[in-house]
Amino acid sequence: MRRTVFFVSDQTGVTAETLGHSLLTQFEGSDFDQVTLPFLDTVDKIDGALARIEQRAAEQGAGPIIFSTLVQDNLRDRFKPGTGLLIDLFDTFLPALEAELHVKSSHKAGRAHGVGDAYLYDQRIDATNFALSNDDGARTRDYDRADIILVGVSRSGKTPTCLYLALSYGVYAANYPLSDDELESGKLPEILLRHRDKIYGLTIEAKRLQQIRYERRPTGRYATMPQVSFETRAAEALFARYKIEYVDTTKSSIEELASTILANTGVERRIRP
Amino acid sequence: MRRTVFFVSDQTGVTAETLGHSLLTQFEGSDFDQVTLPFLDTVDKIDGALARIEQRAAEQGAGPIIFSTLVQDNLRDRFKPGTGLLIDLFDTFLPALEAELHVKSSHKAGRAHGVGDAYLYDQRIDATNFALSNDDGARTRDYDRADIILVGVSRSGKTPTCLYLALSYGVYAANYPLSDDELESGKLPEILLRHRDKIYGLTIEAKRLQQIRYERRPTGRYATMPQVSFETRAAEALFARYKIEYVDTTKSSIEELASTILANTGVERRIRP
Repeated sequence: MRRTVFFVSDQTGVTAETLGHSLLTQFEGSDFDQVTLPFLDTVDKIDGALARIEQRAAEQGAGPIIFSTLVQDNLRDRFKPGTGLLIDLFDTFLPALEAELHVKSSHKAGRAHGVGDAYLYDQRIDATNFALSNDDGARTRDYDRADIILVGVSRSGKTPTCLYLALSYGVYAANYPLSDDELESGKLPEILLRHRDKIYGLTIEAKRLQQIRYERRPTGRYATMPQVSFETRAAEALFARYKIEYVDTTKSSIEELASTILANTGVERRIRP
Repeated sequence: MRRTVFFVSDQTGVTAETLGHSLLTQFEGSDFDQVTLPFLDTVDKIDGALARIEQRAAEQGAGPIIFSTLVQDNLRDRFKPGTGLLIDLFDTFLPALEAELHVKSSHKAGRAHGVGDAYLYDQRIDATNFALSNDDGARTRDYDRADIILVGVSRSGKTPTCLYLALSYGVYAANYPLSDDELESGKLPEILLRHRDKIYGLTIEAKRLQQIRYERRPTGRYATMPQVSFETRAAEALFARYKIEYVDTTKSSIEELASTILANTGVERRIRP
């Protein structure tokens, strides 16, 4: 029996999706259709969403699972699906928080993923631009502004991790690719040594690296096993020599890499998801 | 009375942060210290976290608020803070979900933000690389692979939105900056017209655009009011002429822009947050 999961929100739906996705990963083997209904900020839109949910339930002959982060009372009061399971974030947790804090909550559309503090928001965009212009060792003169400098061989995961650190946390992350010269000599360049405390290493299993590189550039030495084996071994030797902490990216998601790096370095988040 | 909010997880902590942040935005005027304690995946780490939480509570003379996504039973059973408010995602919602689905959940570390399906994960990285190599009109020959092509004037928010669409949703998003030529002639180039159904416009208030550009390049015509006024008016006229749907980025966060674009175009998410 196939079921549909709805993520319902008067804002972006990002919180409802995150919440629901975490809970649903606990039900392995179950398969769900997933539908996000964001920006339901009027009574008309709520009624439209209800009609859509009821119709899908009738078609599938199965109650939907609904994750809701509707916060405005008049919308939430109206949102009463006749079928399925409604998991309502604010209904469930706000009363306990109000009691603990001895404060009434605003029940206004919260814009958890809105612009919020404009200064912090600008920093987030600035951090993203920083990651882009300091990608792949393109520029090293801005390392004074970096919170962190990721170092590793080509295709070890530096760029996506830097971009995620910028977009999700407002962290200024540069990255520097280890060249054959550096790997052969076992020496880091002066520009990195000057920022020794900001360096964090990435490594990756040779076999996985070979696959990734082959998809990108199948010809030449770049994607051969001898080359990737040499590079990964030399990079790890270099990290050991300079006592640089590093993480293996082979089986980790970008979120896991970013969380690991922040936890291990103590670099502060400027913004939060 | 200042309080500390802890985000506690045996994985990244991203879900706990998202959940907690959404709830806390409902308490305007309250100010919290925020501490994320990720990867608490052993009894020893749980005990260390408990000690840290108790110590902070004693220092502040105020109970902490704790958002927990601990999922493994032996860890969750052990995590019993003697103070504050514990908001436990899985304890709260898993029983109702199990009853509705008639399935027991796995209670294993879920890795909601892990690699998951390797194929989808590779698509996410590929989408990020696509956004980077198709940024700022750098390449137009890959538009066949694009899910969406964002069009707008320089600094209207195209790049961060494309990167977010790639990283969070695995969506292939290219972007194309409108040149003075196109703005003056009111004509879109052939390469865009060929992909008319993938185009989505971004606009921005002239005053805000002037500020953003001034911070980036204060000299020359680029950041002057006459220039940004001309560009934004011409861009909107062009969108109207070609009936291109567009969104104003001035007061919207990247999450809001991405959610709006996905909702209005019907482009499917390949992955979910």
